[in-house]
Amino acid sequence: MTTTTDIQRLDELCVNTIRTLAMDAVQKASSGHPGTPMALAPVAYELYARSMRHNPADPGWFDRDRFVLSAGHASMLLYSILHLSGYGVSLEDIEGFRQLDSPTAGHPEYEADGTPGIEITTGPLGQGISNAVGFALAERMLAARFNRPGHEIIGHHTYAIASDGDIQEGVASEASSLAGHLGLGNLIAVYDDNKIQLAAETALAFSEDVAGRYEAYGWHVEDLGENISLERIHNAIDRAQAVEDKPSLLILRTHIGFGSPNKQDTSSAHGSPLGEEEVRATKEAYGWDPDAHFLVPAEVTERFRAAAQVGATAQAEWDQRVTAYRAEHPDLWEELSLYIDGRLPAGWDTDLPRFDPRGKPLATRKASSQVIQWAAKQVPTLVSGSADLDPSTNTPIDDGGSVSRQSYGGRNIHYGVREHAMGAIVNGLNLHGVRAFGATFFNFLDYMKPSLRLAALMGLPVIHVFTHDSIGLGEDGPTHQPIEQLATLRATPNVNVVRPADANETALAWRFALEQEDGPCALVLSRQNLRILDPDAIPSEAISRGAYVLRNAADGAQPEAILIGTGSEVEICLDAADLLEADGVSTRVVSMPCWDRFAEQSPAYRDQVLSPACRARVSVEAAATLGWERWVTEDGESVGMHGFGASAPAPQLYEKFGITAADVAETARRVIDRMGAASRG
Amino acid sequence: MTTTTDIQRLDELCVNTIRTLAMDAVQKASSGHPGTPMALAPVAYELYARSMRHNPADPGWFDRDRFVLSAGHASMLLYSILHLSGYGVSLEDIEGFRQLDSPTAGHPEYEADGTPGIEITTGPLGQGISNAVGFALAERMLAARFNRPGHEIIGHHTYAIASDGDIQEGVASEASSLAGHLGLGNLIAVYDDNKIQLAAETALAFSEDVAGRYEAYGWHVEDLGENISLERIHNAIDRAQAVEDKPSLLILRTHIGFGSPNKQDTSSAHGSPLGEEEVRATKEAYGWDPDAHFLVPAEVTERFRAAAQVGATAQAEWDQRVTAYRAEHPDLWEELSLYIDGRLPAGWDTDLPRFDPRGKPLATRKASSQVIQWAAKQVPTLVSGSADLDPSTNTPIDDGGSVSRQSYGGRNIHYGVREHAMGAIVNGLNLHGVRAFGATFFNFLDYMKPSLRLAALMGLPVIHVFTHDSIGLGEDGPTHQPIEQLATLRATPNVNVVRPADANETALAWRFALEQEDGPCALVLSRQNLRILDPDAIPSEAISRGAYVLRNAADGAQPEAILIGTGSEVEICLDAADLLEADGVSTRVVSMPCWDRFAEQSPAYRDQVLSPACRARVSVEAAATLGWERWVTEDGESVGMHGFGASAPAPQLYEKFGITAADVAETARRVIDRMGAASRG
Repeated sequence: MTTTTDIQRLDELCVNTIRTLAMDAVQKASSGHPGTPMALAPVAYELYARSMRHNPADPGWFDRDRFVLSAGHASMLLYSILHLSGYGVSLEDIEGFRQLDSPTAGHPEYEADGTPGIEITTGPLGQGISNAVGFALAERMLAARFNRPGHEIIGHHTYAIASDGDIQEGVASEASSLAGHLGLGNLIAVYDDNKIQLAAETALAFSEDVAGRYEAYGWHVEDLGENISLERIHNAIDRAQAVEDKPSLLILRTHIGFGSPNKQDTSSAHGSPLGEEEVRATKEAYGWDPDAHFLVPAEVTERFRAAAQVGATAQAEWDQRVTAYRAEHPDLWEELSLYIDGRLPAGWDTDLPRFDPRGKPLATRKASSQVIQWAAKQVPTLVSGSADLDPSTNTPIDDGGSVSRQSYGGRNIHYGVREHAMGAIVNGLNLHGVRAFGATFFNFLDYMKPSLRLAALMGLPVIHVFTHDSIGLGEDGPTHQPIEQLATLRATPNVNVVRPADANETALAWRFALEQEDGPCALVLSRQNLRILDPDAIPSEAISRGAYVLRNAADGAQPEAILIGTGSEVEICLDAADLLEADGVSTRVVSMPCWDRFAEQSPAYRDQVLSPACRARVSVEAAATLGWERWVTEDGESVGMHGFGASAPAPQLYEKFGITAADVAETARRVIDRMGAASRG
Repeated sequence: MTTTTDIQRLDELCVNTIRTLAMDAVQKASSGHPGTPMALAPVAYELYARSMRHNPADPGWFDRDRFVLSAGHASMLLYSILHLSGYGVSLEDIEGFRQLDSPTAGHPEYEADGTPGIEITTGPLGQGISNAVGFALAERMLAARFNRPGHEIIGHHTYAIASDGDIQEGVASEASSLAGHLGLGNLIAVYDDNKIQLAAETALAFSEDVAGRYEAYGWHVEDLGENISLERIHNAIDRAQAVEDKPSLLILRTHIGFGSPNKQDTSSAHGSPLGEEEVRATKEAYGWDPDAHFLVPAEVTERFRAAAQVGATAQAEWDQRVTAYRAEHPDLWEELSLYIDGRLPAGWDTDLPRFDPRGKPLATRKASSQVIQWAAKQVPTLVSGSADLDPSTNTPIDDGGSVSRQSYGGRNIHYGVREHAMGAIVNGLNLHGVRAFGATFFNFLDYMKPSLRLAALMGLPVIHVFTHDSIGLGEDGPTHQPIEQLATLRATPNVNVVRPADANETALAWRFALEQEDGPCALVLSRQNLRILDPDAIPSEAISRGAYVLRNAADGAQPEAILIGTGSEVEICLDAADLLEADGVSTRVVSMPCWDRFAEQSPAYRDQVLSPACRARVSVEAAATLGWERWVTEDGESVGMHGFGASAPAPQLYEKFGITAADVAETARRVIDRMGAASRG
């Protein structure tokens, strides 16, 4: 017979197993963060062994509760609990903490086929809790779209653990405000208020009333204080689950390095191993064998096996509900499976819009709007959203409706002026199967870059629409005119940066973006109108191959000059080619909508586009020229921006900064003359 | 005799002059934001004509109140009030709103010798109110350092106007939390709660209790509601001034496009001209001549002249106090004048630290710490600070004390985990004469980039210390390992990116950074220890010229290969050179601590460093290789990162990613062989 005392003893054993695994792993790695796993072990235990609905035997179960360790530095907390719960993290993996090619990296790393149970990559503070808002919103959106009376097949919670640093970061403020606005009652965050951060006591930099702030955001807040028994945590989570119209914040006053005789409640327990001596002393304080390392008592294994069984049963019940749902709503199930499998409908890309070159010039942001309407019809998982700029980014899905707390089924998310939260939430939505894209001005990429970087690192195919992509935006001036943003994204691994030259390239760009499966895509679009190119002159793989010959030299002559443009500067190249050809200079124009992809092409293809025989090359891009040497050769030149922009009508800015057809033609002539002089000389 | 009614009539005339100037300017430019200037005209009038202590005749008066238009899109509000107040903005300038080379750019632009009265560049939302925290903190710091009993020479307020967008941005949350923590009672912000933002009604994305949130931050908050007569605004500002230990937020429920019969309270009044018709109708509603454009009634001019006189008198009184202060505290005045004039003490850079090459290897972050102690002694205006990473960035000024609400005189600011606020506050501090530098990990540049960009645009010589600058940080893994950050900053105009190779280059780097007068400097430093180079082998202008020959080929031979490194990869180049020389390959090693500066050198100098005769060049940098083609020629190669990093001890990562001396030597041999084959072929 099992008594309450036995259970309490077993609970404590489980909790201390988490703690000692973390201490041992950090000590062995000589690197890492032991203090927070020690403090939060009870929370992880409570969540994984009791409160969360999850099935370690099937980490991909779609209706599982999600857990986000926003305090990613406490990664050993997650690895310990995943190991004990029966996810595919072995004791050997834990012993290999922070070692090369181990799945137990310094911070938790999500990969599509990576460590089971790691829902998302965290570490840069503030991201995880904001991603969790995306998870929770996805659940609400899917529940609204797919649940039917008597058929509740979507209904789960998202749990997050946030540290002081998470709460201090602006992105968390933005996302938390939006979570309150949207009434995401399925989100439950635990705030680890341990009064210690890396540098010193939190009080040195932080004295706000966090509870008051979150209440102001519209959250349900409970401050549990220091008395945080498993029972109190359990009951608080129960109450939070019962609050369906507000996200919950449970504030726990924990003790970093809990149980360490000399380091508890000090910042030395934050980011460094405790030391062999202190590990021993702490184990003794726990009543643990100080000589044991990486010890998992058999009763603990047994306890988690029982918990896993509860999860397996929960999923089995869900499977039954799904069977009933599929019978009743086969079409809905088919649509929902697009989210579950993360795939596009078969034949989705037929009838890609084509724009008539005889039509009036059209900004690529406006062409994009038309393509979005087409894509929204083809791809039901597509969801739009912008950081309060949709009338300018032209990104709304017409008749898609707004996502609001009254109506989660809408297809347009209003992020407010919160670019960073948008980036983080878009990551969460996409990881949950929703193909949500974001939109803002290109210059404000800077505000959300940390989230886009994490999407690239995780290999998430998120899409962001960045309009107003150069000095071409005109009067708003240099505070709004991007210069270095293209180079920034090109230097960021795994990001597809696409800057289409016209409406037809824009259609291809959207198809390309939606086709991606393993990395983000930035669609970089013009504010100003651009001439529409002949769609038949644009190969279907224009984007995926990165660059192509848009116009060959007249009469099929070998080119004497090659002009390479991207986006709005391609039409300047075409006009410059006219000037040069009129002068008798055979000129090729290359459009390079996606530099990254062009760099990955075979040398043969690259030579086909940028004929090696012609070294008189001029690149034209109204942006920083960093990196263009790669394509223009040492003989060529780059026309671009060499400083910040200015506030004036766009055509005057192109004149002022020397990015006109006449400038380009003159540059090409200068290059040709110089090469001629050199070869004569 | 002037009656109350006359005054009210005159006040209204002044307010409507601001409004009509804004409407007319936006209309003439066919671009801009009329609605908010119309709504906030009473606030601007109250501040500039009554509450603020400022002297248009001397915009540089050090103890003036500062005004920050965080809602930078409402720039015509600022231009109108500056014109009326008698700052150097002419009516012609206003008619030239948003035109090429006009001082009235789309968003307010600060330049060192730019439009008088514009304190700081704003437009990207959230920045201005955060900069204002920096202004206010600077005032508090200087008051603590320099005021003496009976000699209060520093004592002014900072005012800011913030929009919904400002309040929504995370950077504002971070900075506001810190302002509350630091009890900045000299900061008074007006929140323009107009219920409308660009896309639609604010309520679509924003429903938090802003008053409650700011109270939770520790602010004094007054919600004035809709009833916002000049008198109520005036009294609220009075009360806010009386609250000395808390920053104040005054919430005004304004009406965007105030008075416009058809556009008031709609988002169409936000970012587009009202239209000729509506401008006429609105003027009629104001009782204004609908045919008048850019009209400034004579009484209005008179009213502002009187206000200017009040300001001149205030400054004259201050001048007298300064005279007394100088007599009593000449040394303090001499020190204060460093802040006022924004200069360094004469002879400050003598005895620059030198590090003995026989010493143990030293991380550049640790060398930097020693240099900071030296610099802090030489430069009293220098103030440190970090985003909760100072034990890792090694940036504190020893014995400098912490800045806190109890003690503003400290020299170390604790920003908490708020990188973005740090960036914005550092901008404000520097504009106020305090040479405050920030510090965080290099990867978290991304979190604060928008603020650094504005510093570059303004030409502010802010310094940021970015440590843990590559995969060399090791186990923390790819979430913390910068890859694209160097390219990002190199592509950003006007930023000096300095990555020193050792302790001695680090000393020069700090001297270089402190010498800058017109642009930011990023000091990019290693976590890992690096061998100390012979200081005599490093020219004094190593940083300012960007690159130099660190080691020539043995026996003065013409180099067959040139290895170019930056930062921690320079010692890898030296080791590779040893391997190559042992193989009989004459090898030169170039250290390039500041690519930007090297690009600006004369071709002669560049050829001296990168001998054009030697095209077998290899660059070595543990970062994205974008742009290195410029220096290695088409024949050369770049050793660097071609994807994200990983979590493991640093030496293993250098092996894994092929950035070792052996790899570099092999690459150089391959390049030489290929060139040989090509010349034979």
